[in-house]
Amino acid sequence: MFSSSSAAAAAAPEQPPAVWARIRLADSRDVPHIHRLIHQMAEFEKLTHLFSATESSLSSTLFPSPQPPPFLSFTVLILELSPNPFSQGDEGHKDAANPSLFRPIVRRVELKSPLEDPEAVEFASPRGGGAVVVGFVLCFPNYSTFLSKPGLYVEDIFVRAAWRRRGFGRMLLSAVAAQAAKMGMGRVEWCVLDWNVNAISFYEEMGAEVLPQWRICRLTGEALQRYEAEGGGRS
Amino acid sequence: MFSSSSAAAAAAPEQPPAVWARIRLADSRDVPHIHRLIHQMAEFEKLTHLFSATESSLSSTLFPSPQPPPFLSFTVLILELSPNPFSQGDEGHKDAANPSLFRPIVRRVELKSPLEDPEAVEFASPRGGGAVVVGFVLCFPNYSTFLSKPGLYVEDIFVRAAWRRRGFGRMLLSAVAAQAAKMGMGRVEWCVLDWNVNAISFYEEMGAEVLPQWRICRLTGEALQRYEAEGGGRS
Repeated sequence: MFSSSSAAAAAAPEQPPAVWARIRLADSRDVPHIHRLIHQMAEFEKLTHLFSATESSLSSTLFPSPQPPPFLSFTVLILELSPNPFSQGDEGHKDAANPSLFRPIVRRVELKSPLEDPEAVEFASPRGGGAVVVGFVLCFPNYSTFLSKPGLYVEDIFVRAAWRRRGFGRMLLSAVAAQAAKMGMGRVEWCVLDWNVNAISFYEEMGAEVLPQWRICRLTGEALQRYEAEGGGRS
Repeated sequence: MFSSSSAAAAAAPEQPPAVWARIRLADSRDVPHIHRLIHQMAEFEKLTHLFSATESSLSSTLFPSPQPPPFLSFTVLILELSPNPFSQGDEGHKDAANPSLFRPIVRRVELKSPLEDPEAVEFASPRGGGAVVVGFVLCFPNYSTFLSKPGLYVEDIFVRAAWRRRGFGRMLLSAVAAQAAKMGMGRVEWCVLDWNVNAISFYEEMGAEVLPQWRICRLTGEALQRYEAEGGGRS
């Protein structure tokens, strides 16, 4: 079902099409796929001129050594699909004493129609088993002083084009919300473009409030660099 | 100059009024002041109904043991003023090998007129020396996938009423920007209310861009709790 060859796509036409979906923590083996997914996101948003990530820079910033526990720093969850059930091994963090433990989330998902994934070879999962990487979410802790509690901020959520409109975005965002609730956090927050009415409806259905009055301020590039000289140490 | 008694305010009328301002890392000794400052901020924003922080909850979330290095997790900088120069000791982090080392920033600030601080006793600095705590900034790392770089997000910036409009807010925000630039980070970001035209002008003067199209989405309270049951582990 994931093959880009028509022979494989025709292999099991009589069965109701279904896949197993798994959300698991990413590690450094996932960097090439994460890099390609971010580039696809930049293409989708017509922002490739702002894209400067390399596999090397992603690896050093997202998977430093030693790696902090998940959800206490930058954290990537990978969504992958397989025509077969996932084996129990190789599912990431196993330290049961750690409150930020993330148990992979696995669902069997029925598809209304068989799907061909033209990028199945390129996005073959590094965990093997015939799975393909389909999307990701990147989040990190934020903090509310009024609540005096941490929360999770969702920087990116992305599902590849072939697999959209099948509930996988909801599955990724729900995974982050469930983790925040489990860790006793106060909020999950993210941003949306004000003209993206489909996304806004989807988020409101999921229980989110869109705050109308707040605007993001950003200091970057040359304007930021100027402060390095100005602000350093005792003068 | 900081006393709330008129006798102290009249002690040195012939000198041009000036203070020494210091921005330093907060530690757990600052929790009572941080708690009061956040409460004043809630009053200023008429949002005390959303204020649920306690000294205990602030202490455990902002100053856990072991404490992560500054700027790699939730970080509070304290602005304090003194009528006398600060001594060099007791200035926080001293690990010179640490890239997130924060050297206190000290400036002598001339005042156009002597100032009386009615809260000088209540906000006496825990570091002593006759200094008073005047404001704070709380920031933490965020991440840009397009840049594949961390940045700093400024959650709160606050200066007590008696000391506003004297450049102390700029000094606090500049300290964060300088630190981000020094650490090779890509951005400093924060939020502003769209009707707060004075704040927007101030931020634009500092070199920031206000992004018109992005809106914040927030999942909190009951709507967030519902996901705890839904999302946990293998189903």
